[in-house]
Amino acid sequence: MKHVAVGQAGGPTAVINATLAGFVESVKEQCQLTFVEGGYQGLVEENFLYGDSEVIDWVLDNQSVPGACLQSGRYPFHDEAIAEAVRSLKKHQIDTLVFIGGNGTMEALLKVKKEAECQGYFLQVLGLPKTVDNDLGGTDHAPGFASAARSIAQTTKDLSRDLYSMKNFEQVRVLETMGRNAGWLAAAAGAWREYEEEGPHYIALPEQPLNKDTLLRTVKEALSSYGYAIVVVSEGVQWEQGSQIELNQVDGRSILGGISKEISEFISEELNVNTRAELLGMNQRADTSALSPIDTYEAYQLGREGGRWVLEGYDEVMVAVGREASNYYTMEIRPVKLEKVIAEGERLLPAQFITNLKAYYQWLTPLLGGDRPSYPPLSKRRVEYSEH
Amino acid sequence: MKHVAVGQAGGPTAVINATLAGFVESVKEQCQLTFVEGGYQGLVEENFLYGDSEVIDWVLDNQSVPGACLQSGRYPFHDEAIAEAVRSLKKHQIDTLVFIGGNGTMEALLKVKKEAECQGYFLQVLGLPKTVDNDLGGTDHAPGFASAARSIAQTTKDLSRDLYSMKNFEQVRVLETMGRNAGWLAAAAGAWREYEEEGPHYIALPEQPLNKDTLLRTVKEALSSYGYAIVVVSEGVQWEQGSQIELNQVDGRSILGGISKEISEFISEELNVNTRAELLGMNQRADTSALSPIDTYEAYQLGREGGRWVLEGYDEVMVAVGREASNYYTMEIRPVKLEKVIAEGERLLPAQFITNLKAYYQWLTPLLGGDRPSYPPLSKRRVEYSEH
Repeated sequence: MKHVAVGQAGGPTAVINATLAGFVESVKEQCQLTFVEGGYQGLVEENFLYGDSEVIDWVLDNQSVPGACLQSGRYPFHDEAIAEAVRSLKKHQIDTLVFIGGNGTMEALLKVKKEAECQGYFLQVLGLPKTVDNDLGGTDHAPGFASAARSIAQTTKDLSRDLYSMKNFEQVRVLETMGRNAGWLAAAAGAWREYEEEGPHYIALPEQPLNKDTLLRTVKEALSSYGYAIVVVSEGVQWEQGSQIELNQVDGRSILGGISKEISEFISEELNVNTRAELLGMNQRADTSALSPIDTYEAYQLGREGGRWVLEGYDEVMVAVGREASNYYTMEIRPVKLEKVIAEGERLLPAQFITNLKAYYQWLTPLLGGDRPSYPPLSKRRVEYSEH
Repeated sequence: MKHVAVGQAGGPTAVINATLAGFVESVKEQCQLTFVEGGYQGLVEENFLYGDSEVIDWVLDNQSVPGACLQSGRYPFHDEAIAEAVRSLKKHQIDTLVFIGGNGTMEALLKVKKEAECQGYFLQVLGLPKTVDNDLGGTDHAPGFASAARSIAQTTKDLSRDLYSMKNFEQVRVLETMGRNAGWLAAAAGAWREYEEEGPHYIALPEQPLNKDTLLRTVKEALSSYGYAIVVVSEGVQWEQGSQIELNQVDGRSILGGISKEISEFISEELNVNTRAELLGMNQRADTSALSPIDTYEAYQLGREGGRWVLEGYDEVMVAVGREASNYYTMEIRPVKLEKVIAEGERLLPAQFITNLKAYYQWLTPLLGGDRPSYPPLSKRRVEYSEH
């Protein structure tokens, strides 16, 4: 009987446990299961949880629960730690290592594989994709992303109505999304926008340096036309060279998740309006109220298929999603070599989507699942044009 | 035919438009309707939208949309502005003024009424309740509160799982809720807590000064027992006299929504752990993904009943919710004099709930509606006790 160890790594998502449950469901009868608690650190420190029926039931019970039930965490997985991890796996006679994670995890799996080879020990490795940022290569998209995107699209739509209500008091809100260097999530903020007057009125992506003048001009136009403006910025956005704003920072330290505050203060000073910066927060990746049903389904199916592949001996691959060219959204699950995933590096929002957000929203819409809310126009009356 | 003007004031909620729709539905056949855009400012500046059938349909279409579709806003409604507002109403031959709002609105309505009397003009006034803070007197609770409370309860539950996943990297999160001087919303964060190890592990209410030692001791205990801690603080929380933390603030200015950051930094320094402050943000009051079905229902019904009372000539009252003593939750709608509402002032979380949160959650649970999520325990293994 194959002895399979499975773990989760990095920032969790709302559906990472669905992938785990799918995987466990498909191998539990034919394999001995060991659960790694605490991601890579758990491998190194042998935080192994024996997969008896009670533990397996508990894992399956977590299917619809956000966060990583095995604890994913962060850990400096340097060469020495990897060697230690392999010794742990060898000691416990583990045949197969499966991890649910992003770019770093796919790289880690391959390093563990190579180190096992060096230690003269055959280890099958398989990766299951997970990222809210959607910056993982080799796959059309990764589980976790669509639910986060849906949460952001809905929140932006709702906050547009909220701010519009208060426009005699507060005129601009700068919403900051996750996404690191990739703009998939920030751009998703506009996916459910129905009207010109509805936000977001400006989206700042990390792929493009933010120009002061363009930002100000767009916000000014929204203020003139609609009386308020919603700006969405990705946490990884940077000012265009030479347009960097000078701020009195304490000891020159940069503040995590601070770009929205900087932009908000800049707009307030330049246009003399009341602004507010708002981080959409960790709930973007944990928000079970806004789960995409498609994302939940795919997360589980990818895990299940991964389980089958483990039984069939697939090695050094990640379970990826392919999209079939068709009028309808049809996904297929296919293996992609870990090497290929790693070679692709961080997958940014492609230029054809940046220059044509409508095309991006066409691509994105099926992933968000149904229930796109339809709201009436914001105002019944033509908003007067006023100088700002 | 009675000429009725209706408006919305103050911070919007996810269901304030449901109340408006209910009201409009019940008077639209028997009254001439005028909609006031922009709250009190709209009254003063005669931002009146004539209620023809097209406008009425648009208002009704907003029933499930968050934010105030008429724009509520904030405005310094001083005596001169009130006199101006009355002149506007008189000029447009308005017989009845209805506003959806909180404490300030009930006070404003009575002032408008008195000023109309002074101007020798009979004006019927009626208030419809709205507040996420639940600090409105004369009513068991007010529409908007339960949906915000549900959003907070769900988010706290989800973020517990999220942080637990990451506890080798980040140990404490300080979540900040709305509520001003009242702790109803902050306390609601624990309404769906199922296990000792699940957050929130500490809730700081504005009704009680926050003691440094109690906070630290509780967080330390959670860290020792579960490896992480979720602290929830109301935006109105203040440190106990003498336990005020000294911070290097720029020019000594206080930061709006800053108490969570202060508490987070304090815990980090004292316990040498990684912490993060997180404002739950404006989405608390606009979150349509976490709407309470009971709240939505009540919001509409209160509006509808208010419409009937307008036709029956009720004056100087607010439409309030009463709770019938019974094993089941049964609400009744009843009038309460505006004077009584105002005399009660800001309604804080009562002492019997502060000292017994279980009793508070029994009171709150029916308002949150169904679908309380049931999650499995966080860990299958006993967490080791470690010194911090």
